[in-house]
Amino acid sequence: MSIIAEPLLIAGQWQLARESLGAFRAREPGTGDEIGPSFPVCGAADVEAALSAAASVADELAAAAPERIAAFLEIYADAIDADADKLVALAHAETALPAPTRLRGNELPRTSGQLRQAAKAVRGYRWTQPVIDTGAGLRSHLAPLSKPVLIFGPNNFPFAFNAIAGSDFASAIAARNPVIAKAHPSHPGTSQRLAQLAHQALIDAGLPAAAVQMLYHFDNALGLALAGDTRLGAIGFTGSRGGGLALKAAADRAGVLCYAELSSVNPVFLLPGALAERGEALAQEFFASCTMGSGQFCTHPGVVIVPQGAAGDAFVAAACAHIAAAGSSVLFSQGVLDHLHQGLSILREAGARVLAEGDAGEAAGYRHAPTLLGVDAATFLANPRALQTEVFGPVSLLVRASGSEEMAQLARAFEGSLTGTLYRAADGSDDAAWSLIATALRPRVGRLIANKMPTGVAVSPAMNHGGPFPSTGHPGFTAVGMPAAIHRFAALHSYDGVPDALLPRELHDRNPGGVPRLVDGEWTTADVGDSL
Amino acid sequence: MSIIAEPLLIAGQWQLARESLGAFRAREPGTGDEIGPSFPVCGAADVEAALSAAASVADELAAAAPERIAAFLEIYADAIDADADKLVALAHAETALPAPTRLRGNELPRTSGQLRQAAKAVRGYRWTQPVIDTGAGLRSHLAPLSKPVLIFGPNNFPFAFNAIAGSDFASAIAARNPVIAKAHPSHPGTSQRLAQLAHQALIDAGLPAAAVQMLYHFDNALGLALAGDTRLGAIGFTGSRGGGLALKAAADRAGVLCYAELSSVNPVFLLPGALAERGEALAQEFFASCTMGSGQFCTHPGVVIVPQGAAGDAFVAAACAHIAAAGSSVLFSQGVLDHLHQGLSILREAGARVLAEGDAGEAAGYRHAPTLLGVDAATFLANPRALQTEVFGPVSLLVRASGSEEMAQLARAFEGSLTGTLYRAADGSDDAAWSLIATALRPRVGRLIANKMPTGVAVSPAMNHGGPFPSTGHPGFTAVGMPAAIHRFAALHSYDGVPDALLPRELHDRNPGGVPRLVDGEWTTADVGDSL
Repeated sequence: MSIIAEPLLIAGQWQLARESLGAFRAREPGTGDEIGPSFPVCGAADVEAALSAAASVADELAAAAPERIAAFLEIYADAIDADADKLVALAHAETALPAPTRLRGNELPRTSGQLRQAAKAVRGYRWTQPVIDTGAGLRSHLAPLSKPVLIFGPNNFPFAFNAIAGSDFASAIAARNPVIAKAHPSHPGTSQRLAQLAHQALIDAGLPAAAVQMLYHFDNALGLALAGDTRLGAIGFTGSRGGGLALKAAADRAGVLCYAELSSVNPVFLLPGALAERGEALAQEFFASCTMGSGQFCTHPGVVIVPQGAAGDAFVAAACAHIAAAGSSVLFSQGVLDHLHQGLSILREAGARVLAEGDAGEAAGYRHAPTLLGVDAATFLANPRALQTEVFGPVSLLVRASGSEEMAQLARAFEGSLTGTLYRAADGSDDAAWSLIATALRPRVGRLIANKMPTGVAVSPAMNHGGPFPSTGHPGFTAVGMPAAIHRFAALHSYDGVPDALLPRELHDRNPGGVPRLVDGEWTTADVGDSL
Repeated sequence: MSIIAEPLLIAGQWQLARESLGAFRAREPGTGDEIGPSFPVCGAADVEAALSAAASVADELAAAAPERIAAFLEIYADAIDADADKLVALAHAETALPAPTRLRGNELPRTSGQLRQAAKAVRGYRWTQPVIDTGAGLRSHLAPLSKPVLIFGPNNFPFAFNAIAGSDFASAIAARNPVIAKAHPSHPGTSQRLAQLAHQALIDAGLPAAAVQMLYHFDNALGLALAGDTRLGAIGFTGSRGGGLALKAAADRAGVLCYAELSSVNPVFLLPGALAERGEALAQEFFASCTMGSGQFCTHPGVVIVPQGAAGDAFVAAACAHIAAAGSSVLFSQGVLDHLHQGLSILREAGARVLAEGDAGEAAGYRHAPTLLGVDAATFLANPRALQTEVFGPVSLLVRASGSEEMAQLARAFEGSLTGTLYRAADGSDDAAWSLIATALRPRVGRLIANKMPTGVAVSPAMNHGGPFPSTGHPGFTAVGMPAAIHRFAALHSYDGVPDALLPRELHDRNPGGVPRLVDGEWTTADVGDSL
């Protein structure tokens, strides 16, 4: 059966699916109506073609001059900026995310900026962490995996985490690995447009055309087979816990690295002093963070711990008032809506009560009322697994705790999360509580935050957008922040007794120019042999 | 059933096994005779006790002052040096490794030196890689996992890779994680003695007594259950591929990090110019590396690729003469001998012929003749999987190749290995061959070596004792070399908007003293806020 659908990008060619197993179109979240062209659900032959093509250029890409890799990243970043109108229109239609504030004002420049930061890391060799031991005759650095990286983009960032434009993509390419991008099927048109820009940028930069493939959709079984193929070097996955764990299991068995961002409830602890000081403002901050982007963030404040007492009651009342007055949230897809319903059921069955609901909105599209649930600490501690079920959407659970000791006990009941937040008083009156609760929370989260909702994720070398299992598969790596995010897709290479002329550029005696290297125990940008 | 056997070290107490499932004694490899006391095969209750004890002090250890951790490592190192006579006598009796040259002259000082290097990394905060972004208000560093690390020591390094004294141990403790040491049952007496020294050093340094547990043996099912326990943070394993893959699978499912060193054939390519220049000397070098330590090294030169032609023939003849004249090798155990027989069978069934055999020795103990096998490149390429079976012992396979192109083809047929070696001519005549073959070999090995057999592993910050799957489970980490080896047992922690007073010491504005930190994109040892 042949279905007329948009072509795939494989081996540098836009080509029709070899064996399409179906087709799908994007849907406008506000109405549920289909929009845009048909995209193919591709079969085994296309997946195999994409993998072979990517693998066939892995060595060539690994040997590419850093200058050329950086040029690609910058040309692509410029193309994204130049195409902003078209990209934002497509992404807005497919995701219903606010066009001026979120997509145009924030996410698109963040995406092109991230590509440029990756380019800078490549040009300056910084991500390679050169280490030289002249006495032992050993030199090491981080190098390409020399195998393709398979990237699954999530539904919630059509640009900044897109499989063909986001942090995983920029990281994998910066480490000079070919990419097989698997678009999220809820925004195929945006992904296609980005793939067209990436493809042209590859040509302009003179990189192998098969350095990047774009597939729009394939079924789970095919995804698992691909994840477990030893020709693959690594996987970058951002998405649901179930899907991510299945991919991780398949990859682990084959020795394929799997960097999966799986789930996170991002507990927020409101300390008593902070509540007394500015409870009303905190309720507003919380409400904004809970409902922004319809709550569809991996750093969504899913559980908020509020002390008992008058200040806590006032916070809850104010938060409930905000939620009750809120309009309906438009979600990305029927799948997100179904998943949200499931999560709500699990929470309610475990004893959470609805404290406030906003407007459910009209029946059209994928809408849900912002919802605030509540539970007491004892109930939470009796069933912490169910009550920390991630609900992807404008839903948070308030947990009332008797004091710092119980808050610390709650902190210890959390699985690994991307973030953990504590709001503390400016006058230092919360310092004892901070010490108790932050100590308990610290090993369970990747980023510990003071006085700020967790939703924002700055692209910074000091960022950790990662965390202990099950928030991700490895607590030592971040998915955001250059150059650290690049390290995920690199292999450590050591050279033992290899003459200077046969070493990679950044390990030569002569520093390529301003590259910080650890030479005989000291960080230096000097040439080897120069007196310090 | 109660069996009188040596006590286990659990929770800071030497205690008899709760439910011993049997007992075993060490055996003298040269005779097979049992020596020393009986050690318990422990059951589930002891494993649970060890895990609970270790987990219960994880937070306390994570909060310990670096000074105290460093003091422990140094006190322990001094104790090992002071106890050298006794330790070397025990290890020699249990392993038959040469006492003066290998154990006393090399491995023991390497072990205490490695502990001191770990102490230095701890004192200088170097392993924590502090990153500060003042603009974004973000600071990050590497921090303890705050969970126990389970370490399986191998049979072949009774000191330097011992579960309670080697690189994994030093690394896990340096990162301030508690350790559950699983001794290798072929040298329980050595492991016990080290555990006694470690225990006393813990007390002297004022660290929690349950920071280190020592178990001597447990069955595979119990090991897999422990590996898959979510209370565990990570595993350090050095041993056989089968055992390591089973542990890795159990750990992966539970989100426990598993750093496993699994298997490696360490291909050695002799380029034509080098052979012509110094073929006779290379045969001697190869022979020494192949038979040293009875060939029981993870960096053993398992496969040597030799060009066809007169110089290659001369090398093979000389290598065969060395092997034929060699005395029998004493192996660690019946298990190693059985495994060696299995490996030889697989190689011979796949077409390898015996080129030379040394003396098989008397029937007593665990002896085998050093053995050289040969195969042509076409046969190897037709069955690369079987012909790169790791044979742990004094056995190597010579592969004859027609020229550089075929050597490069062979290089591409190798799975991931710890090392890859090329011998090249001093006059540059091998440079074209180097380029071809090293390019093919590079992504398949952790350490690329010129003109040196792979057996030696220097403890250096530029070392990579690691490599692509299946030589290890993650190509980005090394098991040897401070401070890099410590990174395996660390979590990335980011602090967002957290006031200076509430940050860990090395992230304060004020540099703790000479710590290189990445501050706003520049490496510096200055305080934050100081003008550069």
